[in-house]
Amino acid sequence: MLRPGERVLVAVSGGKDSLALWDLLVALGYDADGLYLGLGIGDYSDHSGDAARSYAGERGRKLHEVDLAADYGYDIPGAAAATHRAPCGACGLSKRHLFNRVAIERGYDVVATGHNLDDEAAVLLGNVMRWEAGYLGRQHPVLPATLGFARKVKPLIRLGEREMAAYCVLEGIDYIVEECPMAAGNRHLGYKEVLNALEERSPGTKAAFVFGFLDRAQPHFAGAALEERETLGECAVCGSPTTGEVCAFCRLRERASDA
Amino acid sequence: MLRPGERVLVAVSGGKDSLALWDLLVALGYDADGLYLGLGIGDYSDHSGDAARSYAGERGRKLHEVDLAADYGYDIPGAAAATHRAPCGACGLSKRHLFNRVAIERGYDVVATGHNLDDEAAVLLGNVMRWEAGYLGRQHPVLPATLGFARKVKPLIRLGEREMAAYCVLEGIDYIVEECPMAAGNRHLGYKEVLNALEERSPGTKAAFVFGFLDRAQPHFAGAALEERETLGECAVCGSPTTGEVCAFCRLRERASDA
Repeated sequence: MLRPGERVLVAVSGGKDSLALWDLLVALGYDADGLYLGLGIGDYSDHSGDAARSYAGERGRKLHEVDLAADYGYDIPGAAAATHRAPCGACGLSKRHLFNRVAIERGYDVVATGHNLDDEAAVLLGNVMRWEAGYLGRQHPVLPATLGFARKVKPLIRLGEREMAAYCVLEGIDYIVEECPMAAGNRHLGYKEVLNALEERSPGTKAAFVFGFLDRAQPHFAGAALEERETLGECAVCGSPTTGEVCAFCRLRERASDA
Repeated sequence: MLRPGERVLVAVSGGKDSLALWDLLVALGYDADGLYLGLGIGDYSDHSGDAARSYAGERGRKLHEVDLAADYGYDIPGAAAATHRAPCGACGLSKRHLFNRVAIERGYDVVATGHNLDDEAAVLLGNVMRWEAGYLGRQHPVLPATLGFARKVKPLIRLGEREMAAYCVLEGIDYIVEECPMAAGNRHLGYKEVLNALEERSPGTKAAFVFGFLDRAQPHFAGAALEERETLGECAVCGSPTTGEVCAFCRLRERASDA
Protein backbone atom coordinates (compact mmCIF):
# COMPACT_ATOMS: atom_id res chain seq x y z
CA MET A 1 0.00 0.00 0.00
CA LEU A 2 2.61 2.52 1.12
CA ARG A 3 6.38 2.73 0.81
CA PRO A 4 8.64 4.61 3.27
CA GLY A 5 9.19 8.22 2.29
CA GLU A 6 6.05 8.54 0.17
CA ARG A 7 3.84 11.61 0.58
CA VAL A 8 0.37 10.50 1.66
CA LEU A 9 -2.83 12.55 1.39
CA VAL A 10 -5.45 11.35 3.89
CA ALA A 11 -9.09 12.01 2.99
CA VAL A 12 -10.37 13.45 6.29
CA SER A 13 -14.09 13.73 7.04
CA GLY A 14 -13.76 14.42 10.76
CA GLY A 15 -15.25 10.99 11.56
CA LYS A 16 -13.59 8.17 13.51
CA ASP A 17 -12.17 6.26 10.55
CA SER A 18 -10.36 9.06 8.79
CA LEU A 19 -8.94 10.62 11.96
CA ALA A 20 -7.78 7.23 13.25
CA LEU A 21 -6.19 6.51 9.87
CA TRP A 22 -4.33 9.81 9.88
CA ASP A 23 -3.20 9.20 13.46
CA LEU A 24 -1.99 5.67 12.66
CA LEU A 25 -0.09 6.71 9.54
CA VAL A 26 1.77 9.48 11.36
CA ALA A 27 2.50 7.12 14.28
CA LEU A 28 3.95 4.64 11.77
CA GLY A 29 6.28 7.36 10.45
CA TYR A 30 4.55 8.28 7.20
CA ASP A 31 4.59 11.82 5.83
CA ALA A 32 0.80 12.17 5.87
CA ASP A 33 -1.23 15.37 5.43
CA GLY A 34 -5.02 15.69 5.54
CA LEU A 35 -7.58 17.01 3.07
CA TYR A 36 -10.98 18.13 4.31
CA LEU A 37 -13.83 18.82 1.90
CA GLY A 38 -16.53 21.34 2.90
CA LEU A 39 -19.74 19.78 1.58
CA GLY A 40 -22.15 22.48 2.77
CA ILE A 41 -24.42 20.10 4.69
CA GLY A 42 -25.49 22.55 7.45
CA ASP A 43 -24.53 21.79 11.05
CA TYR A 44 -23.12 18.42 10.09
CA SER A 45 -20.49 20.04 7.89
CA ASP A 46 -19.72 22.70 10.51
CA HIS A 47 -19.15 20.07 13.19
CA SER A 48 -17.15 17.72 11.00
CA GLY A 49 -14.90 20.58 9.83
CA ASP A 50 -14.34 21.60 13.46
CA ALA A 51 -13.34 18.04 14.38
CA ALA A 52 -10.85 17.85 11.49
CA ARG A 53 -9.37 21.27 12.20
CA SER A 54 -9.03 20.79 15.93
CA TYR A 55 -7.35 17.38 15.46
CA ALA A 56 -4.88 18.91 12.99
CA GLY A 57 -4.28 21.97 15.20
CA GLU A 58 -3.74 20.05 18.44
CA ARG A 59 -1.31 17.62 16.85
CA GLY A 60 0.43 20.07 14.55
CA ARG A 61 -0.58 18.38 11.30
CA LYS A 62 -1.12 20.00 7.93
CA LEU A 63 -4.76 20.04 6.79
CA HIS A 64 -5.67 21.17 3.27
CA GLU A 65 -9.22 22.40 2.80
CA VAL A 66 -11.46 22.64 -0.24
CA ASP A 67 -14.88 24.21 0.11
CA LEU A 68 -17.38 23.16 -2.54
CA ALA A 69 -19.43 26.37 -2.29
CA ALA A 70 -16.54 28.84 -2.15
CA ASP A 71 -14.26 27.04 -4.60
CA TYR A 72 -16.70 25.41 -7.02
CA GLY A 73 -19.96 27.32 -6.64
CA TYR A 74 -22.20 24.51 -5.39
CA ASP A 75 -22.87 22.38 -2.33
CA ILE A 76 -24.25 18.86 -1.86
CA PRO A 77 -27.86 19.80 -0.99
CA GLY A 78 -27.89 22.06 -4.05
CA ALA A 79 -26.42 19.36 -6.27
CA ALA A 80 -29.07 16.88 -5.10
CA ALA A 81 -31.84 19.36 -5.86
CA ALA A 82 -30.40 20.30 -9.26
CA THR A 83 -29.88 16.70 -10.39
CA HIS A 84 -33.06 15.29 -8.83
CA ARG A 85 -30.92 12.40 -7.59
CA ALA A 86 -29.92 11.09 -4.15
CA PRO A 87 -27.31 13.41 -2.59
CA CYS A 88 -24.88 10.52 -1.92
CA GLY A 89 -24.13 10.17 -5.64
CA ALA A 90 -23.08 13.80 -6.03
CA CYS A 91 -21.13 13.63 -2.78
CA GLY A 92 -19.15 10.51 -3.74
CA LEU A 93 -18.42 11.91 -7.19
CA SER A 94 -17.20 15.23 -5.74
CA LYS A 95 -14.99 13.49 -3.19
CA ARG A 96 -13.39 11.08 -5.67
CA HIS A 97 -12.67 13.88 -8.11
CA LEU A 98 -11.28 16.39 -5.63
CA PHE A 99 -9.19 14.02 -3.52
CA ASN A 100 -7.54 12.86 -6.72
CA ARG A 101 -7.11 16.35 -8.13
CA VAL A 102 -5.52 17.78 -4.97
CA ALA A 103 -3.19 14.78 -4.72
CA ILE A 104 -2.02 15.21 -8.32
CA GLU A 105 -1.71 19.02 -8.16
CA ARG A 106 0.17 19.03 -4.88
CA GLY A 107 2.48 16.14 -5.66
CA TYR A 108 1.22 13.46 -3.25
CA ASP A 109 2.09 9.88 -4.18
CA VAL A 110 -1.04 8.29 -2.79
CA VAL A 111 -4.54 9.05 -1.45
CA ALA A 112 -5.47 7.07 1.68
CA THR A 113 -9.14 6.72 2.67
CA GLY A 114 -10.59 5.43 5.92
CA HIS A 115 -12.93 2.77 4.50
CA ASN A 116 -13.23 0.00 7.09
CA LEU A 117 -14.42 -3.58 6.75
CA ASP A 118 -18.06 -2.62 7.37
CA ASP A 119 -17.93 0.02 4.62
CA GLU A 120 -16.23 -2.27 2.14
CA ALA A 121 -18.64 -5.13 2.78
CA ALA A 122 -21.65 -2.84 2.28
CA VAL A 123 -20.26 -1.35 -0.94
CA LEU A 124 -19.44 -4.84 -2.18
CA LEU A 125 -22.94 -6.10 -1.41
CA GLY A 126 -24.42 -3.20 -3.38
CA ASN A 127 -22.12 -3.86 -6.33
CA VAL A 128 -22.88 -7.58 -6.22
CA MET A 129 -26.66 -7.16 -5.98
CA ARG A 130 -26.54 -5.39 -9.36
CA TRP A 131 -23.38 -7.16 -10.62
CA GLU A 132 -21.74 -3.87 -11.54
CA ALA A 133 -18.80 -5.39 -13.36
CA GLY A 134 -16.90 -2.09 -13.67
CA TYR A 135 -17.26 -1.23 -9.99
CA LEU A 136 -16.34 -4.79 -8.97
CA GLY A 137 -13.19 -4.52 -11.08
CA ARG A 138 -12.19 -1.31 -9.29
CA GLN A 139 -13.09 -2.48 -5.77
CA HIS A 140 -9.66 -3.23 -4.33
CA PRO A 141 -7.73 -1.88 -1.33
CA VAL A 142 -4.90 -0.77 -3.65
CA LEU A 143 -5.63 0.92 -6.98
CA PRO A 144 -2.34 1.63 -8.76
CA ALA A 145 -1.61 5.05 -10.21
CA THR A 146 -2.41 5.45 -13.91
CA LEU A 147 -2.29 8.52 -16.14
CA GLY A 148 -4.24 11.25 -14.31
CA PHE A 149 -4.97 9.09 -11.25
CA ALA A 150 -2.98 9.02 -8.01
CA ARG A 151 -2.61 5.64 -6.29
CA LYS A 152 -5.49 4.96 -3.87
CA VAL A 153 -5.25 2.79 -0.76
CA LYS A 154 -7.62 1.70 2.01
CA PRO A 155 -5.39 0.70 4.95
CA LEU A 156 -8.28 0.03 7.40
CA ILE A 157 -10.01 -2.59 5.28
CA ARG A 158 -9.38 -5.38 7.83
CA LEU A 159 -10.79 -3.43 10.80
CA GLY A 160 -14.41 -3.04 11.84
CA GLU A 161 -16.35 0.11 12.72
CA ARG A 162 -16.31 -0.66 16.42
CA GLU A 163 -12.56 -1.20 16.39
CA MET A 164 -12.05 2.24 14.84
CA ALA A 165 -14.30 3.86 17.43
CA ALA A 166 -12.39 2.06 20.20
CA TYR A 167 -9.06 3.26 18.77
CA CYS A 168 -10.25 6.89 18.85
CA VAL A 169 -11.45 6.57 22.44
CA LEU A 170 -8.15 5.03 23.55
CA GLU A 171 -6.07 7.65 21.71
CA GLY A 172 -8.21 10.57 22.88
CA ILE A 173 -9.25 11.58 19.37
CA ASP A 174 -12.40 13.75 19.29
CA TYR A 175 -14.36 12.80 16.20
CA ILE A 176 -17.79 13.70 14.92
CA VAL A 177 -20.18 10.98 16.09
CA GLU A 178 -23.29 12.10 14.22
CA GLU A 179 -23.96 10.50 10.85
CA CYS A 180 -24.51 12.59 7.75
CA PRO A 181 -28.21 13.61 7.80
CA MET A 182 -28.44 13.30 4.02
CA ALA A 183 -27.43 9.61 4.13
CA ALA A 184 -30.38 8.58 6.33
CA GLY A 185 -32.31 5.80 4.63
CA ASN A 186 -29.90 5.36 1.75
CA ARG A 187 -29.11 1.98 0.19
CA HIS A 188 -25.64 1.78 1.69
CA LEU A 189 -27.07 1.89 5.22
CA GLY A 190 -29.63 -0.74 4.21
CA TYR A 191 -26.80 -3.03 3.10
CA LYS A 192 -25.00 -2.39 6.39
CA GLU A 193 -28.10 -3.46 8.33
CA VAL A 194 -28.42 -6.63 6.28
CA LEU A 195 -24.75 -7.49 6.80
CA ASN A 196 -25.00 -6.81 10.53
CA ALA A 197 -27.89 -9.28 10.71
CA LEU A 198 -25.87 -11.93 8.82
CA GLU A 199 -22.77 -11.25 10.91
CA GLU A 200 -24.74 -11.74 14.10
CA ARG A 201 -25.98 -15.15 12.94
CA SER A 202 -22.60 -16.13 11.63
CA PRO A 203 -19.59 -14.17 12.93
CA GLY A 204 -16.88 -13.70 10.34
CA THR A 205 -19.38 -13.22 7.51
CA LYS A 206 -18.18 -9.74 6.49
CA ALA A 207 -14.50 -10.69 6.44
CA ALA A 208 -15.17 -13.88 4.47
CA PHE A 209 -17.29 -11.87 2.02
CA VAL A 210 -14.72 -9.12 1.39
CA PHE A 211 -11.54 -11.22 1.44
CA GLY A 212 -13.08 -14.12 -0.47
CA PHE A 213 -14.04 -11.58 -3.14
CA LEU A 214 -10.52 -10.19 -3.35
CA ASP A 215 -9.06 -13.69 -3.48
CA ARG A 216 -11.42 -15.53 -5.82
CA ALA A 217 -13.61 -13.08 -7.74
CA GLN A 218 -12.13 -9.59 -8.08
CA PRO A 219 -9.36 -10.78 -10.45
CA HIS A 220 -12.05 -11.90 -12.92
CA PHE A 221 -13.39 -8.33 -13.11
CA ALA A 222 -10.14 -6.37 -12.79
CA GLY A 223 -8.88 -6.74 -16.35
CA ALA A 224 -11.77 -4.98 -18.06
CA ALA A 225 -11.70 -2.16 -15.47
CA LEU A 226 -7.97 -1.56 -15.96
CA GLU A 227 -8.32 -1.62 -19.74
CA GLU A 228 -11.06 1.00 -19.50
CA ARG A 229 -8.80 3.21 -17.40
CA GLU A 230 -6.16 3.13 -20.11
CA THR A 231 -8.53 4.25 -22.85
CA LEU A 232 -9.69 7.42 -21.04
CA GLY A 233 -9.39 10.85 -22.66
CA GLU A 234 -9.01 14.27 -21.01
CA CYS A 235 -11.93 16.40 -19.83
CA ALA A 236 -12.26 19.46 -22.09
CA VAL A 237 -12.92 21.65 -19.02
CA CYS A 238 -10.56 20.44 -16.28
CA GLY A 239 -8.23 17.94 -17.94
CA SER A 240 -9.20 15.02 -15.67
CA PRO A 241 -9.46 11.51 -17.14
CA THR A 242 -12.93 10.82 -18.55
CA THR A 243 -14.76 8.52 -20.94
CA GLY A 244 -16.65 11.47 -22.46
CA GLU A 245 -15.97 15.01 -23.66
CA VAL A 246 -16.54 16.63 -20.26
CA CYS A 247 -15.99 14.67 -17.02
CA ALA A 248 -18.86 13.82 -14.64
CA PHE A 249 -17.56 16.25 -12.02
CA CYS A 250 -17.56 19.23 -14.40
CA ARG A 251 -21.01 18.28 -15.65
CA LEU A 252 -22.27 18.10 -12.07
CA ARG A 253 -20.65 21.43 -11.22
CA GLU A 254 -22.17 23.08 -14.29
CA ARG A 255 -25.63 21.81 -13.47
CA ALA A 256 -25.47 22.43 -9.71
CA SER A 257 -23.90 25.91 -9.82
CA ASP A 258 -26.47 27.10 -12.38
CA ALA A 259 -29.30 26.06 -10.10
CA MET B 1 -33.81 -26.28 -21.46
CA LEU B 2 -36.03 -28.93 -23.00
CA ARG B 3 -36.54 -30.25 -26.50
CA PRO B 4 -39.78 -31.81 -27.79
CA GLY B 5 -39.90 -35.57 -27.26
CA GLU B 6 -37.38 -35.66 -24.43
CA ARG B 7 -38.13 -37.72 -21.33
CA VAL B 8 -38.19 -35.45 -18.30
CA LEU B 9 -37.84 -36.54 -14.67
CA VAL B 10 -39.38 -33.97 -12.32
CA ALA B 11 -37.99 -33.85 -8.76
CA VAL B 12 -41.24 -33.80 -6.76
CA SER B 13 -41.31 -32.81 -3.09
CA GLY B 14 -45.07 -32.38 -2.78
CA GLY B 15 -44.65 -28.61 -2.40
CA LYS B 16 -46.07 -25.89 -4.64
CA ASP B 17 -43.05 -25.43 -6.88
CA SER B 18 -42.46 -29.03 -7.90
CA LEU B 19 -46.15 -29.86 -8.40
CA ALA B 20 -46.70 -26.68 -10.43
CA LEU B 21 -43.63 -27.49 -12.52
CA TRP B 22 -44.87 -31.01 -13.22
CA ASP B 23 -48.30 -29.66 -14.10
CA LEU B 24 -46.86 -27.03 -16.45
CA LEU B 25 -44.55 -29.44 -18.22
CA VAL B 26 -47.36 -31.92 -18.91
CA ALA B 27 -49.62 -29.06 -20.03
CA LEU B 28 -46.90 -27.98 -22.45
CA GLY B 29 -46.83 -31.50 -23.92
CA TYR B 30 -43.66 -32.87 -22.36
CA ASP B 31 -43.29 -36.53 -21.41
CA ALA B 32 -42.69 -35.79 -17.72
CA ASP B 33 -42.72 -38.31 -14.85
CA GLY B 34 -42.16 -37.53 -11.17
CA LEU B 35 -39.67 -38.81 -8.61
CA TYR B 36 -40.48 -38.53 -4.93
CA LEU B 37 -37.82 -39.13 -2.28
CA GLY B 38 -38.90 -40.37 1.18
CA LEU B 39 -36.63 -38.50 3.59
CA GLY B 40 -38.01 -39.95 6.84
CA ILE B 41 -38.77 -36.56 8.42
CA GLY B 42 -41.81 -37.66 10.48
CA ASP B 43 -45.21 -36.11 9.73
CA TYR B 44 -43.69 -33.71 7.22
CA SER B 45 -42.53 -36.57 5.02
CA ASP B 46 -45.84 -38.40 5.41
CA HIS B 47 -47.82 -35.34 4.33
CA SER B 48 -45.51 -34.40 1.46
CA GLY B 49 -45.59 -37.98 0.13
CA ASP B 50 -49.39 -37.95 0.32
CA ALA B 51 -49.52 -34.69 -1.67
CA ALA B 52 -47.21 -36.07 -4.37
CA ARG B 53 -49.08 -39.39 -4.62
CA SER B 54 -52.54 -37.89 -4.70
CA TYR B 55 -51.54 -35.38 -7.40
CA ALA B 56 -50.08 -38.22 -9.51
CA GLY B 57 -53.06 -40.49 -8.85
CA GLU B 58 -55.74 -37.91 -9.64
CA ARG B 59 -54.08 -36.81 -12.86
CA GLY B 60 -52.86 -40.25 -13.97
CA ARG B 61 -49.17 -39.43 -13.91
CA LYS B 62 -46.31 -41.79 -13.23
CA LEU B 63 -44.54 -41.19 -9.90
CA HIS B 64 -41.34 -43.06 -9.07
CA GLU B 65 -40.49 -43.34 -5.39
CA VAL B 66 -37.27 -43.91 -3.52
CA ASP B 67 -37.35 -44.30 0.24
CA LEU B 68 -34.07 -43.47 1.97
CA ALA B 69 -34.76 -45.75 4.95
CA ALA B 70 -36.11 -48.76 3.01
CA ASP B 71 -33.74 -48.50 0.04
CA TYR B 72 -30.56 -47.10 1.57
CA GLY B 73 -30.78 -47.84 5.30
CA TYR B 74 -30.79 -44.27 6.67
CA ASP B 75 -33.00 -41.22 6.94
CA ILE B 76 -32.27 -37.49 7.17
CA PRO B 77 -32.65 -37.10 10.96
CA GLY B 78 -30.34 -40.12 11.40
CA ALA B 79 -27.81 -38.71 8.92
CA ALA B 80 -27.76 -35.38 10.76
CA ALA B 81 -27.17 -37.12 14.08
CA ALA B 82 -24.46 -39.41 12.66
CA THR B 83 -22.55 -36.62 10.92
CA HIS B 84 -23.06 -33.98 13.64
CA ARG B 85 -23.88 -31.55 10.82
CA ALA B 86 -26.98 -29.58 9.82
CA PRO B 87 -29.58 -31.92 8.25
CA CYS B 88 -29.91 -29.75 5.12
CA GLY B 89 -26.45 -30.76 3.90
CA ALA B 90 -27.24 -34.49 4.04
CA CYS B 91 -30.65 -33.84 2.48
CA GLY B 92 -29.31 -31.84 -0.47
CA LEU B 93 -26.55 -34.38 -1.09
CA SER B 94 -29.02 -37.28 -1.04
CA LYS B 95 -31.41 -35.51 -3.40
CA ARG B 96 -28.74 -34.50 -5.93
CA HIS B 97 -27.31 -38.01 -5.98
CA LEU B 98 -30.57 -39.90 -6.25
CA PHE B 99 -32.36 -37.64 -8.74
CA ASN B 100 -29.35 -38.02 -10.99
CA ARG B 101 -29.01 -41.75 -10.44
CA VAL B 102 -32.68 -42.51 -11.15
CA ALA B 103 -32.57 -40.34 -14.29
CA ILE B 104 -29.51 -42.16 -15.63
CA GLU B 105 -30.72 -45.66 -14.70
CA ARG B 106 -34.20 -45.17 -16.13
CA GLY B 107 -33.15 -43.43 -19.30
CA TYR B 108 -34.47 -39.89 -18.69
CA ASP B 109 -32.83 -37.15 -20.73
CA VAL B 110 -33.12 -34.43 -18.15
CA VAL B 111 -33.91 -33.76 -14.47
CA ALA B 112 -36.16 -30.72 -13.89
CA THR B 113 -36.30 -29.13 -10.44
CA GLY B 114 -38.76 -26.55 -9.13
CA HIS B 115 -36.26 -23.91 -7.92
CA ASN B 116 -37.93 -20.52 -8.23
CA LEU B 117 -36.44 -17.02 -8.28
CA ASP B 118 -36.57 -16.72 -4.48
CA ASP B 119 -34.70 -20.01 -4.07
CA GLU B 120 -32.07 -19.15 -6.65
CA ALA B 121 -31.47 -15.69 -5.21
CA ALA B 122 -31.02 -17.13 -1.69
CA VAL B 123 -28.65 -19.86 -2.89
CA LEU B 124 -26.70 -17.28 -4.89
CA LEU B 125 -26.42 -14.96 -1.89
CA GLY B 126 -25.04 -17.82 0.20
CA ASN B 127 -22.53 -18.75 -2.48
CA VAL B 128 -21.51 -15.12 -2.94
CA MET B 129 -21.11 -14.42 0.79
CA ARG B 130 -18.41 -17.11 0.88
CA TRP B 131 -17.37 -16.73 -2.80
CA GLU B 132 -17.68 -20.45 -3.40
CA ALA B 133 -16.12 -20.42 -6.85
CA GLY B 134 -17.07 -24.03 -7.65
CA TYR B 135 -20.71 -23.58 -6.65
CA LEU B 136 -20.91 -20.27 -8.53
CA GLY B 137 -19.60 -22.01 -11.62
CA ARG B 138 -22.33 -24.65 -11.38
CA GLN B 139 -25.17 -22.26 -10.51
CA HIS B 140 -26.99 -22.05 -13.83
CA PRO B 141 -30.55 -22.88 -14.92
CA VAL B 142 -29.20 -25.36 -17.47
CA LEU B 143 -26.35 -27.73 -16.60
CA PRO B 144 -25.49 -29.82 -19.65
CA ALA B 145 -25.14 -33.60 -19.41
CA THR B 146 -21.60 -34.87 -18.93
CA LEU B 147 -20.30 -38.39 -18.30
CA GLY B 148 -22.37 -39.79 -15.41
CA PHE B 149 -24.57 -36.68 -15.09
CA ALA B 150 -28.00 -36.15 -16.64
CA ARG B 151 -28.82 -32.64 -17.87
CA LYS B 152 -30.38 -30.50 -15.13
CA VAL B 153 -32.79 -27.64 -15.70
CA LYS B 154 -34.68 -25.14 -13.52
CA PRO B 155 -37.62 -23.93 -15.63
CA LEU B 156 -39.19 -21.79 -12.86
CA ILE B 157 -36.17 -19.57 -12.26
CA ARG B 158 -37.98 -16.43 -13.48
CA LEU B 159 -41.02 -16.91 -11.22
CA GLY B 160 -41.41 -15.96 -7.58
CA GLU B 161 -42.68 -18.02 -4.65
CA ARG B 162 -45.98 -16.20 -4.54
CA GLU B 163 -46.54 -16.73 -8.26
CA MET B 164 -46.07 -20.49 -7.82
CA ALA B 165 -48.51 -20.57 -4.90
CA ALA B 166 -51.03 -18.59 -6.97
CA TYR B 167 -50.64 -21.04 -9.88
CA CYS B 168 -51.42 -23.99 -7.61
CA VAL B 169 -54.50 -22.28 -6.19
CA LEU B 170 -55.79 -21.43 -9.69
CA GLU B 171 -55.14 -24.94 -11.00
CA GLY B 172 -56.59 -26.66 -7.93
CA ILE B 173 -53.35 -28.38 -7.01
CA ASP B 174 -53.22 -29.53 -3.37
CA TYR B 175 -49.66 -29.08 -2.15
CA ILE B 176 -48.04 -29.37 1.24
CA VAL B 177 -47.97 -25.88 2.74
CA GLU B 178 -45.90 -26.64 5.82
CA GLU B 179 -42.18 -26.03 5.60
CA CYS B 180 -39.69 -28.74 6.45
CA PRO B 181 -39.28 -28.66 10.27
CA MET B 182 -35.58 -29.48 9.98
CA ALA B 183 -34.92 -26.37 7.89
CA ALA B 184 -36.16 -23.94 10.57
CA GLY B 185 -33.43 -21.40 11.34
CA ASN B 186 -31.07 -22.55 8.61
CA ARG B 187 -28.87 -20.18 6.63
CA HIS B 188 -30.91 -20.46 3.46
CA LEU B 189 -34.00 -19.09 5.22
CA GLY B 190 -31.85 -16.30 6.70
CA TYR B 191 -30.74 -15.32 3.19
CA LYS B 192 -34.37 -15.36 2.04
CA GLU B 193 -35.33 -12.95 4.84
CA VAL B 194 -32.49 -10.62 3.92
CA LEU B 195 -33.46 -10.65 0.25
CA ASN B 196 -37.12 -10.05 1.10
CA ALA B 197 -36.07 -6.96 3.06
CA LEU B 198 -33.97 -5.67 0.14
CA GLU B 199 -36.74 -6.47 -2.36
CA GLU B 200 -39.24 -4.50 -0.31
CA ARG B 201 -36.99 -1.41 -0.33
CA SER B 202 -36.15 -1.83 -3.98
CA PRO B 203 -38.50 -4.04 -6.05
CA GLY B 204 -36.70 -6.00 -8.75
CA THR B 205 -33.65 -6.64 -6.54
CA LYS B 206 -33.86 -10.45 -6.68
CA ALA B 207 -34.27 -10.59 -10.46
CA ALA B 208 -31.42 -8.10 -11.03
CA PHE B 209 -29.24 -10.14 -8.67
CA VAL B 210 -29.86 -13.54 -10.30
CA PHE B 211 -29.97 -12.46 -13.95
CA GLY B 212 -27.10 -9.98 -13.60
CA PHE B 213 -25.07 -12.87 -12.18
CA LEU B 214 -25.91 -15.15 -15.10
CA ASP B 215 -25.13 -12.39 -17.59
CA ARG B 216 -21.99 -10.80 -16.18
CA ALA B 217 -20.40 -13.04 -13.55
CA GLN B 218 -21.29 -16.72 -13.90
CA PRO B 219 -19.27 -17.13 -17.13
CA HIS B 220 -16.12 -16.14 -15.19
CA PHE B 221 -16.63 -19.10 -12.86
CA ALA B 222 -18.06 -21.67 -15.27
CA GLY B 223 -14.84 -22.77 -16.93
CA ALA B 224 -13.13 -24.12 -13.83
CA ALA B 225 -16.32 -25.91 -12.74
CA LEU B 226 -16.74 -27.62 -16.12
CA GLU B 227 -13.09 -28.63 -16.20
CA GLU B 228 -13.47 -30.20 -12.77
CA ARG B 229 -16.48 -32.17 -13.98
CA GLU B 230 -14.42 -33.66 -16.77
CA THR B 231 -11.65 -34.90 -14.48
CA LEU B 232 -13.96 -36.91 -12.19
CA GLY B 233 -13.39 -40.61 -11.56
CA GLU B 234 -15.92 -43.32 -10.66
CA CYS B 235 -17.02 -44.09 -7.11
CA ALA B 236 -15.60 -47.49 -6.06
CA VAL B 237 -18.96 -48.37 -4.43
CA CYS B 238 -21.70 -47.07 -6.75
CA GLY B 239 -19.92 -45.95 -9.91
CA SER B 240 -21.11 -42.32 -9.70
CA PRO B 241 -18.76 -39.51 -10.72
CA THR B 242 -16.58 -38.36 -7.81
CA THR B 243 -13.37 -36.50 -7.06
CA GLY B 244 -12.34 -39.13 -4.49
CA GLU B 245 -12.25 -42.91 -4.15
CA VAL B 246 -15.78 -43.20 -2.75
CA CYS B 247 -18.44 -40.57 -3.54
CA ALA B 248 -19.92 -38.28 -0.86
CA PHE B 249 -23.29 -40.06 -1.04
CA CYS B 250 -21.80 -43.50 -0.34
CA ARG B 251 -19.70 -42.07 2.49
CA LEU B 252 -22.81 -40.46 4.00
CA ARG B 253 -24.78 -43.68 3.60
CA GLU B 254 -22.02 -45.72 5.24
CA ARG B 255 -21.80 -43.36 8.19
CA ALA B 256 -25.54 -42.81 8.63
CA SER B 257 -26.65 -46.43 8.24
CA ASP B 258 -24.07 -47.61 10.81
CA ALA B 259 -25.40 -45.19 13.38
